[in-house]
Amino acid sequence: MNDLLLDSLRDVIGGGKVSVQETDKQTHAHDESFHAAHAPDAVVWPESTAEVSAVLRWANANRVPVTAWGGGSSLEGNPIPVRGGIVLDMTRMDRVVEVLASDFQVRVQPGIIGDALNKQLKSTGLFFPAFPGSSDIATIGGMIANNAGGMYAVRYGVVGDNVLQLEVALASGDVIHTGSRSIKNVAGYDLMRLFVGSEGTLGVITEATLRLVGVPSGKITLLVAFPAIEPTLDAVLGLLGAGLQIAALELMDSRYIHLVNQGKRLGWQEAPSLLIELHGLLESVAIELPMIEDICGEYAGVIAQTATTTEAQNRLWDGRRAVRHLVRTLLPGMGVLAGDIGVPISQIPELFRQTYALGEERDIQTMAYGHAGDGNFHCWAIYREDDADAYQRATAIHEALTGWAISVGGTAAAEHGLGLGKRKYLPKQHATSMPHMAAIKRLFDPNGILNPGKIFPDENEQA
Amino acid sequence: MNDLLLDSLRDVIGGGKVSVQETDKQTHAHDESFHAAHAPDAVVWPESTAEVSAVLRWANANRVPVTAWGGGSSLEGNPIPVRGGIVLDMTRMDRVVEVLASDFQVRVQPGIIGDALNKQLKSTGLFFPAFPGSSDIATIGGMIANNAGGMYAVRYGVVGDNVLQLEVALASGDVIHTGSRSIKNVAGYDLMRLFVGSEGTLGVITEATLRLVGVPSGKITLLVAFPAIEPTLDAVLGLLGAGLQIAALELMDSRYIHLVNQGKRLGWQEAPSLLIELHGLLESVAIELPMIEDICGEYAGVIAQTATTTEAQNRLWDGRRAVRHLVRTLLPGMGVLAGDIGVPISQIPELFRQTYALGEERDIQTMAYGHAGDGNFHCWAIYREDDADAYQRATAIHEALTGWAISVGGTAAAEHGLGLGKRKYLPKQHATSMPHMAAIKRLFDPNGILNPGKIFPDENEQA
Repeated sequence: MNDLLLDSLRDVIGGGKVSVQETDKQTHAHDESFHAAHAPDAVVWPESTAEVSAVLRWANANRVPVTAWGGGSSLEGNPIPVRGGIVLDMTRMDRVVEVLASDFQVRVQPGIIGDALNKQLKSTGLFFPAFPGSSDIATIGGMIANNAGGMYAVRYGVVGDNVLQLEVALASGDVIHTGSRSIKNVAGYDLMRLFVGSEGTLGVITEATLRLVGVPSGKITLLVAFPAIEPTLDAVLGLLGAGLQIAALELMDSRYIHLVNQGKRLGWQEAPSLLIELHGLLESVAIELPMIEDICGEYAGVIAQTATTTEAQNRLWDGRRAVRHLVRTLLPGMGVLAGDIGVPISQIPELFRQTYALGEERDIQTMAYGHAGDGNFHCWAIYREDDADAYQRATAIHEALTGWAISVGGTAAAEHGLGLGKRKYLPKQHATSMPHMAAIKRLFDPNGILNPGKIFPDENEQA
Repeated sequence: MNDLLLDSLRDVIGGGKVSVQETDKQTHAHDESFHAAHAPDAVVWPESTAEVSAVLRWANANRVPVTAWGGGSSLEGNPIPVRGGIVLDMTRMDRVVEVLASDFQVRVQPGIIGDALNKQLKSTGLFFPAFPGSSDIATIGGMIANNAGGMYAVRYGVVGDNVLQLEVALASGDVIHTGSRSIKNVAGYDLMRLFVGSEGTLGVITEATLRLVGVPSGKITLLVAFPAIEPTLDAVLGLLGAGLQIAALELMDSRYIHLVNQGKRLGWQEAPSLLIELHGLLESVAIELPMIEDICGEYAGVIAQTATTTEAQNRLWDGRRAVRHLVRTLLPGMGVLAGDIGVPISQIPELFRQTYALGEERDIQTMAYGHAGDGNFHCWAIYREDDADAYQRATAIHEALTGWAISVGGTAAAEHGLGLGKRKYLPKQHATSMPHMAAIKRLFDPNGILNPGKIFPDENEQA
């Protein structure tokens, strides 16, 4: 971008909201993935829908790439501005616009951070239930644009399932409204769902209306250890089929727990384990405990911990959540390919078998954990950052697992999106529908200015 | 359609699957709504995806309108072939393709009737939970194409929320696959959700993979009578906020119950009432009863019946479901405008006030009932079929209510679709996004052969 272009951008939104400083560009050059950084030409902080619209209109006229930016916590390079241009940092649009408590709804700007929203909702007795593990950093807009999943998907669905309305600024600068404040709505095509998970390639979300649910009076969190993965899945099927009030059903393998034990000194049994959380009336969830013990016991699962206080529950969740950050301290100099795949749940045991066998074949440390309730798993391949060959071997494992997931009817991207790292799998996973996705992209963004280089593979690139 | 064209159609699919007999044409000329019948030129019964594809390719080349047909139970004229052409009756494609019990999934052809599917699933202990009231007639394909709602939406979502994959034959004859067998999936754009609720205007569904859930071991059904609508809503908010295991939360007004009492001799108290059903472990739902009694009691709600046996539960549901059929026997010569609107739930009391006030103003009998959990209501305006003026007045009430619903952020079509009767509201409800819906329609169906005359208003038509 030359100075003339930059000056015209400053005219559009005001010079104080545009930065070309190297530090600002560098903090918007990479997400939390292993993908190479690429700095934008400028960072822009819009403060209203009108400003987002004006910047998009300008960018469209000048063919400048625009990549929307939330918390920067993506894991597939989704917001890396690989073609330069501007990053639209949405974090100044971080207000709760309106709490509609007697509708169980809230209107928010896209830049609000997940945990901050729930903190502001606390006095209402309601909360937004569908946050991903990164809700301390991730913004609502980013979560919607990536249709993030989360721990409580078994009970409450994922982020996209809890969005009722979206205001979206298109590449043309036009602002459209989609969805309805009626929970049930079937008036015309569901455009809203096109924007959910579109990773900022079809438009920029400028406001969202979200569904809320009541904070349950009773919560019980359990850690259950099993002798092997197969019986763990049997228990998962039994638990899911029994109609229990399960809000979370997380599966961690023994390798994962080994890492957690090292970093957190939790002293958990290093065995395949389920972290189960029940939500409901206190009396009503309490009465389900013997049933859970029975079902798990049938498959030799032993309840290691039962947490009924918030403090004890947080300790358990800390073990589940902290491992991403532990890698850096426990495994200095190591990188992680944190593969995110989804499979039909009957395939979970095979997912672990593949993860281990591929690791042994290629002499790479592997492990897996994830959301057993919806078949969404993270298969880690850990490599030495200074060992290019190890990185290649880890990549090969990652690719084999992703290809396998697609072959059993699963997905290359369960909750992290295709972004940069997984875009090459789109033709394989959606061979017949990809041309129609591309046509929709051209419809909404004929000049290809919105987050270019994502979701769709480059020519000649294939899995 | 001339004989030459018909002969070429017979060449495509075989003469035995094409009918131009008047009786066949007349049974495919109207749905269950008040909209005028319009017969197709021919009825075609495809028996495979390949046949659907071949017929569409033929129709597209010859610019022949194609309207897909399921159970014919729509309520907004959705499958009436208003531009003639062919009706594609999907009911011969009615097989369960594959039960995937350990994935909690089933693959079905679109022509299977809802209740027939659950009957076939019985031995698995699983069921499809999202059926509309018409599941004894409606086909899965029709339910998906209209994103039908239902009694259990509070707990399990609506039909579209429980679809994982769709195979769709496009106007071009191309067959595409959308979605994934992984419950969580964010690989590219959510094309599947475009077809859900598109009323056969974007493609013809030829196969679907559905999510199933375990049949709950405990079910309790309650009928609770309230002194007025306002406290009924207060109880609804209390019940929804408390985290109870509510699967159904139906609200019926006293006029509705008066009709049911006349027809079914149930002897229910003629007062605003909630029909509540709890699903879960038997012990665990039983323990929630006093809480429900407390919350309802706080707003002067009295539990009139508590049904724990299937027989007693069926009697209660019969009261809720039978009223549509009762009209014909109890009110001979009367027609019903069965308006289907959705509002944010805080607007429910105002919905009843409007329904009654508009009825009084225009001397038309009105009543309302619906799904309190998602704000989806049916506001009836009852008129004498031989009284053209009464029909006009009923229509005016219908239009005022629909306009009001849109004005409070609700929807003109909650679960019956826009079809023919509500298409004029699309510009009002989705002013900014309608042009983009139309562009998507042109993308998938450039010749406009798929169910023409639906969803989008004709020129000069407006609400």
